[in-house]
Amino acid sequence: MNLLSPAPVFTPVATCGTIHGVGLGPGAPDLLSVRADRLVRGARHVAYFRKAGRPGQARRIAEGMLRADVVEIAMEYPVTTEIPLTDPRYNEQLSSFYAECTERMAALAHSGEDVVVLCEGDPFFYGSFMHLHSRLSGVVPVNVVPGITGMAGAWNATGVPITWGDDVLTVAMATLPEDELVRRIRDTDALVVMKIGRNLPKLRRAVAAAGREDVAWLVEHAAMPGQRVTPLTKAESVTPYFSILLIHGQGRRP
Amino acid sequence: MNLLSPAPVFTPVATCGTIHGVGLGPGAPDLLSVRADRLVRGARHVAYFRKAGRPGQARRIAEGMLRADVVEIAMEYPVTTEIPLTDPRYNEQLSSFYAECTERMAALAHSGEDVVVLCEGDPFFYGSFMHLHSRLSGVVPVNVVPGITGMAGAWNATGVPITWGDDVLTVAMATLPEDELVRRIRDTDALVVMKIGRNLPKLRRAVAAAGREDVAWLVEHAAMPGQRVTPLTKAESVTPYFSILLIHGQGRRP
Repeated sequence: MNLLSPAPVFTPVATCGTIHGVGLGPGAPDLLSVRADRLVRGARHVAYFRKAGRPGQARRIAEGMLRADVVEIAMEYPVTTEIPLTDPRYNEQLSSFYAECTERMAALAHSGEDVVVLCEGDPFFYGSFMHLHSRLSGVVPVNVVPGITGMAGAWNATGVPITWGDDVLTVAMATLPEDELVRRIRDTDALVVMKIGRNLPKLRRAVAAAGREDVAWLVEHAAMPGQRVTPLTKAESVTPYFSILLIHGQGRRP
Repeated sequence: MNLLSPAPVFTPVATCGTIHGVGLGPGAPDLLSVRADRLVRGARHVAYFRKAGRPGQARRIAEGMLRADVVEIAMEYPVTTEIPLTDPRYNEQLSSFYAECTERMAALAHSGEDVVVLCEGDPFFYGSFMHLHSRLSGVVPVNVVPGITGMAGAWNATGVPITWGDDVLTVAMATLPEDELVRRIRDTDALVVMKIGRNLPKLRRAVAAAGREDVAWLVEHAAMPGQRVTPLTKAESVTPYFSILLIHGQGRRP
């Protein structure tokens, strides 16, 4: 639909729908915000990203919450870890994928439908929804509902506060080069590392080189059935993509 | 009540109550999690920290949600910014304050009552509740409900994602020394600074020295009436304690 074309005669001008990027939190269904819960339960159209052939983490969190007549739109990544990030084809393929998803969302909004895009954690914190948000902004109404981050779910699972007093918290991805990881892990009070997956051996070497192996924890499936908190020294070599490494701050505590 | 003393004759042994540290999120009443919302609305006893003579930010978020017969326990800090953090009296006064609050919570739990402690944001992320949690753990049952952090409320207010791709996020307090702030602001992709208050002039100099003044935003009252997003260069010199400074990451975006 071209926004500049005249509305067809005799057809009432439809009100444009809204694309809602809704943070679902770390995993437990009752850790959605009240605002998110209402939007998800009332949605006629829900969309979510997933790896082809997988149920999708966001969709799994919303299990049992959707309307009986909901229309589901599974947006399947054309590539996740098959092509290295440095290969130009990675960006090309993802870019045209996000463009297609954007067109689909915009078409629904232009036909007057609202769409709730299910997002794990918080949509503006390392989320795929951001790639739709940047393309949809100014085209159709977009609304973002913040969520409890996966990392907050992870430190909650350990039962220990992540930061005290004047602690510095660093959040880094395990996809960074090893020497960069070592430098970051040395130079912070509290630490969160995400996107671990196949980077676990590298991350473990980096934590050891920074001299902090004995205080690092690996949290898997935070706030979900199967939640597991393991000292890094005892973690197995294979770990799901959604696991999070934590080092707790030790700052001022009166 | 002494746990070792025998239960009085003819009095049924009470089940110990639970102290719930409940994250209320950044400010909007519908940004509590469904779990937090249920606990707050059902609570017979609620407790919250506040500066003497102020309503208290956590209590303000819960306004209109409490039971008509609720018992409120306002825990008023004996000191906030009147004594510098480096003065030993600061730690002494706060330490005995937290000990008193702990005794009060433990006594309620031992008498069989649950208490919901209202916490802004997430209880394990730079929160005062942590000082009760560490003292109550192992003494009475303690339950922590994570929340949407104030910083997530702040970046949501800007309408721009905080981190993309492999961005490093640094969270630092404006109470740090100026040269340390400069170093941290230079050495990160995305930045969050909290505890600004009277440190704003120092923070502003640090951001400028790091060469990032033109991309820094100040968010006040995120997710609340009066929410305001201001470029740092245009911010006034006085700002509430709960304002947050942000620099957005510019990482990989296919």
